[in-house]
Amino acid sequence: MSNVSAAEVAKLRAATGAGMMDCKKALEDAAGDAEQARMLLRERGLADAAKRKGKEAKEGLIHSYLHAPNPGLPPKIGVMIEVLCETDFVAKTDEMKALAQDIAMHIAAAKPAYVSLEDVPEDVLEGERELARKKVEGKPEKVVAQATEGAVKKFAKQFCLLEQPWVRDDKQTIGQLLAGYASNTGENISVRRFARYEVAEALE
Amino acid sequence: MSNVSAAEVAKLRAATGAGMMDCKKALEDAAGDAEQARMLLRERGLADAAKRKGKEAKEGLIHSYLHAPNPGLPPKIGVMIEVLCETDFVAKTDEMKALAQDIAMHIAAAKPAYVSLEDVPEDVLEGERELARKKVEGKPEKVVAQATEGAVKKFAKQFCLLEQPWVRDDKQTIGQLLAGYASNTGENISVRRFARYEVAEALE
Repeated sequence: MSNVSAAEVAKLRAATGAGMMDCKKALEDAAGDAEQARMLLRERGLADAAKRKGKEAKEGLIHSYLHAPNPGLPPKIGVMIEVLCETDFVAKTDEMKALAQDIAMHIAAAKPAYVSLEDVPEDVLEGERELARKKVEGKPEKVVAQATEGAVKKFAKQFCLLEQPWVRDDKQTIGQLLAGYASNTGENISVRRFARYEVAEALE
Repeated sequence: MSNVSAAEVAKLRAATGAGMMDCKKALEDAAGDAEQARMLLRERGLADAAKRKGKEAKEGLIHSYLHAPNPGLPPKIGVMIEVLCETDFVAKTDEMKALAQDIAMHIAAAKPAYVSLEDVPEDVLEGERELARKKVEGKPEKVVAQATEGAVKKFAKQFCLLEQPWVRDDKQTIGQLLAGYASNTGENISVRRFARYEVAEALE
């Protein structure tokens, strides 16, 4: 009988993209040590993010979520997202629809500005780093490097969808939520883009 | 008894934003001549576009339309739009929702790239003019001017939402459709922005 919990297995699957049985085995072999189990999966070639890398995510779905903050009034906030996967077999599942709905609702509440850190223009990031540098002026290079790195991480957590803690369960990021679904389906699953509209909001 | 048709009245209202009875009266006084009736309304200060100009359209709604081209598959095309008006009294009507739905469905089919001609970057328009100029090289200035003007109009009709003929009734543009609703409600009604997503489409 196994002394590995389903929650631990799920967490490892989300982190590595490996199959359920492989994760269970690795955790058992590692006596429940998650970090060691991860290394085992990598050694065994089962952390399959790399394997999946070459496959194209070109199927998927468009989903939208409209929010009416006041009863009796029409929707004042709207979110539309494109979620990609590899096959229509997965695209048409209720799970994908539920995932798209979860993420769209998250976007409505958490107001990300970008999908991932890579989408942030370099001048925006440089502005964040510059502010951080000013705060540690004159300090050793290592401290400055830590400060600028920390500033970028903080920015990502605040404005990048994949780095944001999920509003409904802040123990995981949206990126981890997606990784969990990717692991469950064995397909690359990604949010390609989203739009968030709020009635009469100021635009850039 | 009046010999002015309801269709003529509706058309004049859409064009001027004036009230129904005022349009009817103007058409009768002008013996059915639409252009003259328009002038009369203007002289009488009843073509109220100018009056409404100062009012802010800052209420409204967000609406979305999802389209699944293949039965059994999830939505592959999505449109989200922001429609503005002046009061929540109008924003919450079924008519506004129907208008938003009509326009969103139009966008799904007609694929506009901009809301209005004013949103088109100048270099894009200049490119269209340049192509037109090449076709009439050496011709009189007037011909060249007509050609470049024609090219811009053609571009607008193809890519600007407000100038596009409505897919469900190409006797009116989306701009005229909006003007009709504006006239009916006595409020400024506008499409502020829209997004149109198609799964895995090429992006710029």
